[in-house]
Amino acid sequence: MEIKDLGEDGLIQHIKKAAGMENERVIAGIGDDAAVIKKKGGGCLLAALDMLIEDIHFTANTPFFDIGHKAIGVNLSDIAAMGGTPEYAFTSIGVRDGMSVEDIGRLYEGLLSHAGEYGVSLLGGDTNRSPRGFVIDICVLGQVGEKDLCLRSGARAGDSIFVTGALGKSALALKKSLYAPVTPRVKEAKALLEITKPSSMIDISDGLAKDLRRLCESSGTGAEISREKIPAAEGASFEEAFSAGEDFELLFTAPASENAKLLSSFSLKTGIQLSLIGKMTEGNLGIFIRDKNNKKTPLEGGYDHFTR
Amino acid sequence: MEIKDLGEDGLIQHIKKAAGMENERVIAGIGDDAAVIKKKGGGCLLAALDMLIEDIHFTANTPFFDIGHKAIGVNLSDIAAMGGTPEYAFTSIGVRDGMSVEDIGRLYEGLLSHAGEYGVSLLGGDTNRSPRGFVIDICVLGQVGEKDLCLRSGARAGDSIFVTGALGKSALALKKSLYAPVTPRVKEAKALLEITKPSSMIDISDGLAKDLRRLCESSGTGAEISREKIPAAEGASFEEAFSAGEDFELLFTAPASENAKLLSSFSLKTGIQLSLIGKMTEGNLGIFIRDKNNKKTPLEGGYDHFTR
Repeated sequence: MEIKDLGEDGLIQHIKKAAGMENERVIAGIGDDAAVIKKKGGGCLLAALDMLIEDIHFTANTPFFDIGHKAIGVNLSDIAAMGGTPEYAFTSIGVRDGMSVEDIGRLYEGLLSHAGEYGVSLLGGDTNRSPRGFVIDICVLGQVGEKDLCLRSGARAGDSIFVTGALGKSALALKKSLYAPVTPRVKEAKALLEITKPSSMIDISDGLAKDLRRLCESSGTGAEISREKIPAAEGASFEEAFSAGEDFELLFTAPASENAKLLSSFSLKTGIQLSLIGKMTEGNLGIFIRDKNNKKTPLEGGYDHFTR
Repeated sequence: MEIKDLGEDGLIQHIKKAAGMENERVIAGIGDDAAVIKKKGGGCLLAALDMLIEDIHFTANTPFFDIGHKAIGVNLSDIAAMGGTPEYAFTSIGVRDGMSVEDIGRLYEGLLSHAGEYGVSLLGGDTNRSPRGFVIDICVLGQVGEKDLCLRSGARAGDSIFVTGALGKSALALKKSLYAPVTPRVKEAKALLEITKPSSMIDISDGLAKDLRRLCESSGTGAEISREKIPAAEGASFEEAFSAGEDFELLFTAPASENAKLLSSFSLKTGIQLSLIGKMTEGNLGIFIRDKNNKKTPLEGGYDHFTR
């Protein structure tokens, strides 16, 4: 069977099954935004790993500053989605022939400026030659207190579904061949935890549609969301807001009893809008989107690295 | 300036300078085999990261089992070189078009069998499409007690230089297009620490010549080694034993007062040969190799990913 027939989530499930290792200190491994390891002294170590590949995540024309900025940003976003604080970064790069020392300088400028903004130290990694296209893989380590740890798997039927910010910004930028800077919601996740503990959380890296499905699958729930509640960025179509990837906003759930507190406090604290887009349902009910005429459609969409 | 003019170590120095971040909990960052972070509860966290790229580290014909086995092995070797115990692994893969689910299965078989041998749990990572060639990057986390931590930087003039095992095995296998399985010297490093604490240590990934230079540069020493003391594997030429990469033996130094103890105990404990190949000298004396006629030649050689 070819991987494209399996799709990205199918492949991850396949690997998860193959790995099949148990370790009592591991709270979350394959299949969450970051791995979670209980520390002996208390609290949890978080580890996120993300690879960017030429002609998949950027082109030969993308400025190296932007590649560096994005490569670390997507990892910071993973740590944010766990409720954590990023601390250390490691980079592996495959340098294509003809790249200049100045290119590397700009790559690290983008990487380090973003790391510095979040108090993250770059500690090392690996440098290689890559015969066909530039590749960068970044590992970010962070930490989170056990009581603040947000997994994908904690949502319950009846919980409200929230999304931060506006969606489709990255898709709009892409149409103009621009880079929409990744803004990891590290501070926003912290502010959220001061208001209430989400029952589940994920960052929207592959589109609301797909990442909502992931929350539901991990939590064993269904979901029902309202089409007109989805916060589209100015100029973005519904499809762009709903299915396009790389917005890196937070998608989370919380008991409905927390709705009022969240809606009144979150935007005040952070300056970022918060939208209540629907609710989790029982797992056997599936995932539906309801339009303004109250018509329910099963959920589809989202970005898959392999099947598209 | 192009990267090939700078070379691999030049590039690492360039990145190190660009990073320029200080963190009081970081004992070693860019430029050792693994990064070392002091844990709050005592001991140190180790993090190694190594990327393998198609047509650089393997070819389209290399069995996927071997790629997986090697990709984790080189990281386990990095942890061994710090005197540490590997614990967790994370993998990022870029999957080339046309790869099958069976290919991924064999990759993870190689990876997991090797991880399992060393008690390492695979915890997650990232999966991507790669349009031109397979790429895998692995991060291994481990730990080491502060008193057992071996850096590249601790050698002093007068210290003896030792190497474990036989060199040139990987070069011999390469000539037959075979994979010489990476055997990370994790147990051997532990046995060594029971005998004495090395003053500096590195794993031989890019050839004895180059990795000895790295030890000397990190420690601020020169070195003098004897050509006929270099332990060439059966059938390997001097050049293969001295300069070829990927043997993953340990190269370490210890005060000369420990020579007798090391030479009498190490092989008994491990079943692996130990060779005393020379001694560290003052830093301003440079690095020399002495032949059987007592002729001294300045050291050259080793594998550079960029200039070769």
